[in-house]
Amino acid sequence: MNKKILFYDTTLRDGSQAEGISLSSRDKILIAKRLDQFGIHYIEGGWPGSNPKDMEFFLAVKKAGLKRSKVAAFGSTRRAHVKVKEDAQIKSLLDAGTKVVTVFGKSWNMHVTEVFRTSLKENLLMIYETVAYLKDQKIEVIYDAEHFFDGFKANPEYAIKTLQQAARAGADNLTLCDTNGGTLPHKIRHAILRVKRAVKTPLGIHCHNDSELAVANSIQAVGEGCRLVQGTVNGFGERCGNANLTSIIPNLQIKMGYRCFSQARLKELTSLSHYVADVCNLPPMNNQPFTGRSAFAHKGGVHINAMVKNAKTYEHVRPESVGNYRRYLVSELGGKTNIMIKAQELEMKFQKDSPEAKKILAEIQRLEHEGYQFEAAEASFELMVQKLLGKFKSFFKTEAVSVRTEEIGAGRPRSIADVKIITKDMKYFESAEGDGPVNALDSALRKALVKTYPLINEIRLTDYKVRVVNSEAGTAAKVRVFIEFQDKKKVWTTVGVHENIIEASWKALVEAIEYKLHKG
Amino acid sequence: MNKKILFYDTTLRDGSQAEGISLSSRDKILIAKRLDQFGIHYIEGGWPGSNPKDMEFFLAVKKAGLKRSKVAAFGSTRRAHVKVKEDAQIKSLLDAGTKVVTVFGKSWNMHVTEVFRTSLKENLLMIYETVAYLKDQKIEVIYDAEHFFDGFKANPEYAIKTLQQAARAGADNLTLCDTNGGTLPHKIRHAILRVKRAVKTPLGIHCHNDSELAVANSIQAVGEGCRLVQGTVNGFGERCGNANLTSIIPNLQIKMGYRCFSQARLKELTSLSHYVADVCNLPPMNNQPFTGRSAFAHKGGVHINAMVKNAKTYEHVRPESVGNYRRYLVSELGGKTNIMIKAQELEMKFQKDSPEAKKILAEIQRLEHEGYQFEAAEASFELMVQKLLGKFKSFFKTEAVSVRTEEIGAGRPRSIADVKIITKDMKYFESAEGDGPVNALDSALRKALVKTYPLINEIRLTDYKVRVVNSEAGTAAKVRVFIEFQDKKKVWTTVGVHENIIEASWKALVEAIEYKLHKG
Repeated sequence: MNKKILFYDTTLRDGSQAEGISLSSRDKILIAKRLDQFGIHYIEGGWPGSNPKDMEFFLAVKKAGLKRSKVAAFGSTRRAHVKVKEDAQIKSLLDAGTKVVTVFGKSWNMHVTEVFRTSLKENLLMIYETVAYLKDQKIEVIYDAEHFFDGFKANPEYAIKTLQQAARAGADNLTLCDTNGGTLPHKIRHAILRVKRAVKTPLGIHCHNDSELAVANSIQAVGEGCRLVQGTVNGFGERCGNANLTSIIPNLQIKMGYRCFSQARLKELTSLSHYVADVCNLPPMNNQPFTGRSAFAHKGGVHINAMVKNAKTYEHVRPESVGNYRRYLVSELGGKTNIMIKAQELEMKFQKDSPEAKKILAEIQRLEHEGYQFEAAEASFELMVQKLLGKFKSFFKTEAVSVRTEEIGAGRPRSIADVKIITKDMKYFESAEGDGPVNALDSALRKALVKTYPLINEIRLTDYKVRVVNSEAGTAAKVRVFIEFQDKKKVWTTVGVHENIIEASWKALVEAIEYKLHKG
Repeated sequence: MNKKILFYDTTLRDGSQAEGISLSSRDKILIAKRLDQFGIHYIEGGWPGSNPKDMEFFLAVKKAGLKRSKVAAFGSTRRAHVKVKEDAQIKSLLDAGTKVVTVFGKSWNMHVTEVFRTSLKENLLMIYETVAYLKDQKIEVIYDAEHFFDGFKANPEYAIKTLQQAARAGADNLTLCDTNGGTLPHKIRHAILRVKRAVKTPLGIHCHNDSELAVANSIQAVGEGCRLVQGTVNGFGERCGNANLTSIIPNLQIKMGYRCFSQARLKELTSLSHYVADVCNLPPMNNQPFTGRSAFAHKGGVHINAMVKNAKTYEHVRPESVGNYRRYLVSELGGKTNIMIKAQELEMKFQKDSPEAKKILAEIQRLEHEGYQFEAAEASFELMVQKLLGKFKSFFKTEAVSVRTEEIGAGRPRSIADVKIITKDMKYFESAEGDGPVNALDSALRKALVKTYPLINEIRLTDYKVRVVNSEAGTAAKVRVFIEFQDKKKVWTTVGVHENIIEASWKALVEAIEYKLHKG
């Protein structure tokens, strides 16, 4: 049996339909280069007929020097009762100058009559003539059977006929689309079994995630014989997204024995996933299978104890196989085992029952009781351990800090912070205004530090979260603040807890900056 | 065939293992009440033997007056070579005082020998004796076969034997767990077919999402005969999360014809999903199937054109069936149905296509674009509707407000607020000190209001949540604040959004107090 699977990425077209994603042509080129580097077989660049930005991409990508991937332009069958040659959209598909064109046609009779408002017969002609015309131009043609599974449900004979038209016209691949994402795996199977009796052209699959089944449907289709899988990195796409290639690839390769990419390539999966999220300016999903930051993060004490004995106990694949890594989250549930592991990650080795381990555990319990949480604040954890082990040296001392917010409720509030600190060389007193009190404090503190420590300019505050803890206590509820900072190389998070939100924020802020100064 | 499915929610136990989730017992009670209101059949409250917080919950939930759901305590089989009666963990399971106990045992030989470090034979005894002992106490026992599918793969005979022990001891249900989330749907099917030949006890399924297949695996298991489905709201859980009940329920009910909940209940699915996310203080996933804000949001021009002709063209289910609504991202048309439902809750009836409905819709879209979210802030929603309908009369006017925090970083920070307002009778200028700036503003505002409106003394601020949101416009990061107040009769939440956290908090604070004054 042929176990070789081809992947067709549509992040640049279908993916960019996601709410909140808006890609410039430069962004698109960056993503295309990265997909090419990974070795994705096809990259769908856009719909040249639909907007000028997409045509810009096709011109630019020719100069991008892609080595492994074929670029595909996407478009529709010709319009009803128009000659293919004279159809403006078909012309722009050719103008894109790609070696591959993916053309979609209607498989669902309702769409033909209600959306195209033409006859079922004319639709068959539209499919046949469009594919035949593109094949005449020596182009590789992938025929996307839009709404195939819904069409098959409504009128199986007609849906099959549309495929036969594309096959007869010479399409290189027939991709069956679950456009609305509503089909269940057993229905996918049933339809493909029927399709295989009707056409001999290689088949592909294109799923959407509206029923949270896009990955399952895609691998089901591969099991039934589809050898081209369409999807997007991270499953980005309209509504609930497209089939997530980042999950489909390791499932097919590691678990089902299909040939997808080399093992070395597969190790780039996590970085591909994060890179595309960054370019799309979407926050990475921590709990994303295989590539998420939490995908191999263990929190329960029972799990951690077992993991130390044998990593297979609570891991379905080795995290390194997809370029991810294992994490043990520090929490009062975890006990001494995970403190030890954590300390080893920080390259501070001590024994499980050593006085150091006991001291750290006691401190974690004390701090968690106060409302601290370290599992998402690894930088604070590291500083805390260094302090307990006597390895911590502060880079500056706080003398006097205050912040005020004025003109509240009047439309343009102003926050101003005053910070007096002592660094290793001298005293600094600085003021700064900010979007809010924390922003003002951050700006004033950086102004005061930058002369002594210029590398402070490399970092920026990227996230801020606040939670009230033990709110049933009534009066003295505490506030827990997480602050995330980034420089070019890494991301780190600190935590601060106090009754006063400003004080809690200040603690987290100071630790985040101390952490940077320690790391250099 | 029996088409009735029971749902078992473990948001409070497995869900709380998710990175970044830390639930207080008060949060847990809030979620339990909401699950009960929805009619989830079983609520797993925690592991009473593992930490004092979980036991606290079991004591509190008895007084919470749940009507529909059964509460289950979770625990492990007895320890090796210890008498059941003398096992401290089993004792604490009984101390929890629930009518249902879920007890997990090892199905995978490797776990028995390497983690429990006992013999395969002793493990069978541990399962049998634990279940039998609990059944002797007249408790409903669900036996969770941990790692069942991995165990079945490694040693099918032994895995089946463990189930038979639990069955013979009288377990009411055997739930097969894909603990590591690595199993594929066809392997789930294969294993269950074999299990059904070996035991006659009703079966359940418990999946994790590490391969992005938890929903597919759960519905596959139901197809093979499992009638109890374990999972969490929104799929929250350790690593990549548990099986997402919010997707499984509509798939089973709408698409596969199983009996789950009434149609009216199903319409509460979206609000359940958002409510639990809010209590967990996790950002809602916009692209979440069925309940996400983008789940029925159409962006592509081709899609929208077709949708206007026939909504079935690009929707797999009716959004209203799960309490969600359709959004058109380009043309800014939107979900009037949702507003109608809300308005009816507020006993303000108007027609779907009335000018009022359109006005409210436009305002919601404008505010949501700015970062507001009303699902968890019904008091703000109500005030907004009243303002738009001209029924709102303000009880006071803000003249000048400021707040400052001093002595930050020195151990005893002080926040002082100055508030100048005008009530119906006169101007008030008051100052107050507080634990933090919001507390200070709250105190000063109340001092200024109490002479005119003495009932202000009845209320107190009980929760405060903050999240950074990036508006869709994507320029300056905004802060969204939720404030919860209580009086003796009810709890209400308001929302404020602004770049400045103090301004956002003030907006929410003012609305919370206006709401009280309106309600009296």
